[in-house]
Amino acid sequence: MFRKLLSFDEAKQLLEQSFSAKPIGVEQVSLSGAHERVLAQNVTSPADIPSFTRSIVDGYAVKAADTFDASEDKPVTLKFCGHVAIGEAPNVVVKKGLIAEIVTGAPLPEGADAVVMVEYTTPREYSVFVHRPVTIGENIMAAGSDISKNETVLKVGRFLSSREIGVLAAIGLTEVTVYKRPKVAVLSTGAEVVAPGEPLPAGKIYDINAHTLSAAVTEAGGEPINLGIIPDNKEELTDALKKALSLADAVITSGGVSVGPKDFTPQVVDSLGKPGVIISGVAVKPGKPITIAVVNEKPVFSMPGNPTSSLFMFNVFVRPVIVKLAGRPEEELHTLKAVAAQKMFPARGRRTFTMVNLGYDNSGRLIASPVPTGLSGAITTLVKADGFVEISEKQQFVDVGTEIDVYLFGKLRKTKNV
Amino acid sequence: MFRKLLSFDEAKQLLEQSFSAKPIGVEQVSLSGAHERVLAQNVTSPADIPSFTRSIVDGYAVKAADTFDASEDKPVTLKFCGHVAIGEAPNVVVKKGLIAEIVTGAPLPEGADAVVMVEYTTPREYSVFVHRPVTIGENIMAAGSDISKNETVLKVGRFLSSREIGVLAAIGLTEVTVYKRPKVAVLSTGAEVVAPGEPLPAGKIYDINAHTLSAAVTEAGGEPINLGIIPDNKEELTDALKKALSLADAVITSGGVSVGPKDFTPQVVDSLGKPGVIISGVAVKPGKPITIAVVNEKPVFSMPGNPTSSLFMFNVFVRPVIVKLAGRPEEELHTLKAVAAQKMFPARGRRTFTMVNLGYDNSGRLIASPVPTGLSGAITTLVKADGFVEISEKQQFVDVGTEIDVYLFGKLRKTKNV
Repeated sequence: MFRKLLSFDEAKQLLEQSFSAKPIGVEQVSLSGAHERVLAQNVTSPADIPSFTRSIVDGYAVKAADTFDASEDKPVTLKFCGHVAIGEAPNVVVKKGLIAEIVTGAPLPEGADAVVMVEYTTPREYSVFVHRPVTIGENIMAAGSDISKNETVLKVGRFLSSREIGVLAAIGLTEVTVYKRPKVAVLSTGAEVVAPGEPLPAGKIYDINAHTLSAAVTEAGGEPINLGIIPDNKEELTDALKKALSLADAVITSGGVSVGPKDFTPQVVDSLGKPGVIISGVAVKPGKPITIAVVNEKPVFSMPGNPTSSLFMFNVFVRPVIVKLAGRPEEELHTLKAVAAQKMFPARGRRTFTMVNLGYDNSGRLIASPVPTGLSGAITTLVKADGFVEISEKQQFVDVGTEIDVYLFGKLRKTKNV
Repeated sequence: MFRKLLSFDEAKQLLEQSFSAKPIGVEQVSLSGAHERVLAQNVTSPADIPSFTRSIVDGYAVKAADTFDASEDKPVTLKFCGHVAIGEAPNVVVKKGLIAEIVTGAPLPEGADAVVMVEYTTPREYSVFVHRPVTIGENIMAAGSDISKNETVLKVGRFLSSREIGVLAAIGLTEVTVYKRPKVAVLSTGAEVVAPGEPLPAGKIYDINAHTLSAAVTEAGGEPINLGIIPDNKEELTDALKKALSLADAVITSGGVSVGPKDFTPQVVDSLGKPGVIISGVAVKPGKPITIAVVNEKPVFSMPGNPTSSLFMFNVFVRPVIVKLAGRPEEELHTLKAVAAQKMFPARGRRTFTMVNLGYDNSGRLIASPVPTGLSGAITTLVKADGFVEISEKQQFVDVGTEIDVYLFGKLRKTKNV
């Protein structure tokens, strides 16, 4: 099953051509369940919002024309005809010469076309002095001025934060259709891994990948199904992968993709369906041995066992696919501009992702320093870094002092002065 | 209960002096349950990671000194003494003159101090030719070089993303102590609000605030307890607030804080305990009528009924408190620099938060335009805006062309050219 080692750009392109990642389905959820989900429908309003014209101040409802001659010293006198309470249909009519007391949010009574703020009035026993004219429509919010009946207020693909939940509540919705979260099966292979919490025999390490990758799936909008550690033999791996493909929309394995005799994951994956393995290794560092397959219209990503490599390759190849399966909007990675504090070389012929720490130099410039990479597979390297820099295989090196884009791993922690 | 209208800065300061927001408690969670929680303990490693020295390449384990004379044309010949498999204690000893086959991740056998990459060897029947010297320690990862026994790998206050979960898995943890999520009771008041899904009688509107504020509580790291809509009378409000205070660590009400006869929320809150209401209105726009109280060591925030104002005031006053109660790190709000496309005025004497839309002008500059604010209380205003600009009460205005900081509401949607 020999395949050419693809360049990074070729691999990304081939994946997109071989697998068209689309939302895997939709479901109905309640208003509170809709929070932080993605709309799978256009939302149109069943009614005008507000459904009635209302006062937006405390004061008095009037016919504006009755106030046109009003002034501070020569107020207009209008006859008091009643109160308008909030939350009820008004039971007064403001005919010419009349005035009704009204509060913020109360419906404008019939006959009135404006509201005078209480500050500009003096109540008398049976009448009210108005000290300032108002124009038609002043201090009121017309029915439908927020949302019109049948207006599309939110569109398919919109992420529902607290603000969008407010719009759904405003139009009275209690249920909405959102995209389902794709299920992503995660399994670890390798004779050397045991589950955290188990005793650690000689020569074994704890399984990091199943846990980092499951968490990373959640962060991408998916639902991880952690199928645990699969023993190092073809039969059990084949069974586990068949089960994974029956349960999930995508599959991620880790381990077993290098060149040793027990690295048979790609062969097994390739045997499960068509087209099978489409990418066998990518000219990228870290993560070169990554294998990607499409099996019966589901993507299967086989990550290296090295936990730093696997999490990096997840973010570069897998996450964008999960985001699309989840119906989420395409992501713009959060970058910062910094100055390279050291010369940085790409691995020869490979798209290189170098982890960096950020700090400030004496002139207050934000600088990026590569973290020491001597520790292959050190999970702490990934945790200590603030982010990473992408260096093209076509570049000789990134020189000291060059302005570079740093992709941040998370929110920037308070950066230290260096 | 007359109190001076405080300035924005005075109000923030008084709140900090009157209520010291600290994490409300801790709890044990599993490894998968720890994802996206905040560490409430320092995490120290119970062992060296890796716990054994291992090969980081596929090749052959040797005594480095045996290879010093090796060259491409004149290889050194070493006698083959066995294989070292991954995941098992080695059963070979690499004495002087011997060589053992080894794979990536396998433990370095006794006697060996380096590994030669397979690319630089030629296997023979009973021996191996080594074509390149190695130094002591080459191609191996020493025990404890990732994490040392007793090393503090993660500190209190650390947010646990997928990368940090990897560290916990690496050291074999299955449980960790994290901060509890503060419970925040949310209740709406007002004769004019009904719950979404109910029929809408004349003069009524749907309750937006209970839903936006509950979602906003979740976004801040809290657990909302939605107590629904409380009828507009003092007895029921008093009972509801007492229940809220018994169930939750903080309380948010909306509505009933203006100056109408039914705006008695602040009085009721003030009667519930000491010190009671500490802030009665703030010179801010929107949100001036906000009332803040501390009752028996719990904060009670009474937001205006206007949904735009209440969500704004939540973000400015309430969210920072919930973040601290949740043990989360202090937040740096995400800002962008943009150029003011229009002149913007603060409301006189008030710290003003003006909502803006972002776009690009013909020269490709990012510009910010105020959204039309004619619609008091329009929930769609909040949803259509990209972010907001803070204008100090001390400023006359923000002039066209000034560079300003725009606080983003969420991820920036693809900005449109204007």
